[in-house]
Amino acid sequence: MIAIFDSGYGGLTVFKPIIHLLPQYDYLYLGDSARTPYGAHSPENIKHFSEEAVEYLFSHGAKLIIFACNTASSVALCHVQQKYLKEKNEKERKILGVLIPVAEEVSKITKSNRVGVIGTSATINSNVYETEIHKINPNIKVHQKACPLLVPLIEEDWHKKPEAISILKKYLKPIKSTNIDTLILGCTHYPLMIKDIKRIMGKKITVVPSGEITAKSLENYLSRHSEIEQKLSKNRKRKFFTTDNPEKFKIFTEKHFGMKIPLPQKVELKG
Amino acid sequence: MIAIFDSGYGGLTVFKPIIHLLPQYDYLYLGDSARTPYGAHSPENIKHFSEEAVEYLFSHGAKLIIFACNTASSVALCHVQQKYLKEKNEKERKILGVLIPVAEEVSKITKSNRVGVIGTSATINSNVYETEIHKINPNIKVHQKACPLLVPLIEEDWHKKPEAISILKKYLKPIKSTNIDTLILGCTHYPLMIKDIKRIMGKKITVVPSGEITAKSLENYLSRHSEIEQKLSKNRKRKFFTTDNPEKFKIFTEKHFGMKIPLPQKVELKG
Repeated sequence: MIAIFDSGYGGLTVFKPIIHLLPQYDYLYLGDSARTPYGAHSPENIKHFSEEAVEYLFSHGAKLIIFACNTASSVALCHVQQKYLKEKNEKERKILGVLIPVAEEVSKITKSNRVGVIGTSATINSNVYETEIHKINPNIKVHQKACPLLVPLIEEDWHKKPEAISILKKYLKPIKSTNIDTLILGCTHYPLMIKDIKRIMGKKITVVPSGEITAKSLENYLSRHSEIEQKLSKNRKRKFFTTDNPEKFKIFTEKHFGMKIPLPQKVELKG
Repeated sequence: MIAIFDSGYGGLTVFKPIIHLLPQYDYLYLGDSARTPYGAHSPENIKHFSEEAVEYLFSHGAKLIIFACNTASSVALCHVQQKYLKEKNEKERKILGVLIPVAEEVSKITKSNRVGVIGTSATINSNVYETEIHKINPNIKVHQKACPLLVPLIEEDWHKKPEAISILKKYLKPIKSTNIDTLILGCTHYPLMIKDIKRIMGKKITVVPSGEITAKSLENYLSRHSEIEQKLSKNRKRKFFTTDNPEKFKIFTEKHFGMKIPLPQKVELKG
């Protein structure tokens, strides 16, 4: 079973391209909506929440966990990889994030060596996109901007209204003025505003959502790691878990992602 | 010790008038910022969070707990009073909310018998203000409106910007059109926008924040319940606990409430 973990609904922008590209596997989606948005929380709490999610998912049959949430990937991925895989010398399970494939992709795309990143406060403060991009090419200049109100605006379905567009413009203005040619959407929610982001940034700037890149990266990973791939069940099952209101999860998903899904199962993460 | 419990910083709008009116007591403030805003969560989770807070506060010497958070008062107060007081026949401790004193006050203020309430989605969906007001006077018509974006806007310090004022206007428009003469600010964060709320609602409408009313109600309660009052320590101590970033808590409090406070202690509520 492949598990997709996110702080809430946002990870569905990663889940959707993954199941489109790799439909044959069984999937489990876990959204920790009771504690969303992770971006406003301290690194210590985000690590703690991520540990609980990993323990839950491994105990429910996950062989491969994708951290769809940029915030959790930024702040907690190395920590959980260390604790649950390296220290236990675990060879049959894996935890992957969204950052490295995106960093690799933008390093190929940019011509001016000027890249922008927008994300939650926790993701931007972690500076992890710059760190990963500089491992590939230290000459790329990375301009970052935290946009903490976008997640609440999207969660409340206000993201098409003029106030949300005006807030978005104010967030993007300083990053647009840096003459970047590539912009990373460093939060799984932001693809829900991608049309407005592209319009504000202009045609010369390539906007990079992480979902499609993560899907291609996963396909590539599985082709190279048959020891993991062979252990994944392939019955096209999809299960959804949420820590908050299952009806709200189902309504949001069906409205914004055009997917019919079964009612998610409510779970408790605290152990 | 008197404990003030809130989902985050908002309860400071209740804490401040209480310590102003009753400075002689020892106080403990607990903000569950790691899981704020409660308003977006399911009733089941809010009850669970509130149980954890009550257990923590009682085990740390609280004799009287004030649920400053309207959401927790709306959804979880009866539940925790039943579980921790009535079922245990507990006579020496008390848990009080903000709703009943506010309902009593507005029932005295309104002349047209038309009252408005704004609050989080959970508070409004609980319908508890209407229920409490109707216990006092069933002829009062109660118009309610959920304003879920106001808490994130305030937490991000965007609440003085034009986008926030425009969102506020859109939230208030339907409730203004109902010809109410009294408006309850049914969320502890909203007093931070009270000037704009008053300006938008106009001079004919009395805007009622819950902080001052709760303080007066507490003073009245203690004068009638000497068995509780005598057990409260009176050394003018103030302690602050938060489940998230203590520095952020201190900066926000000092900026918006003009209070110098010691660095809060970080606590874990999950037990």
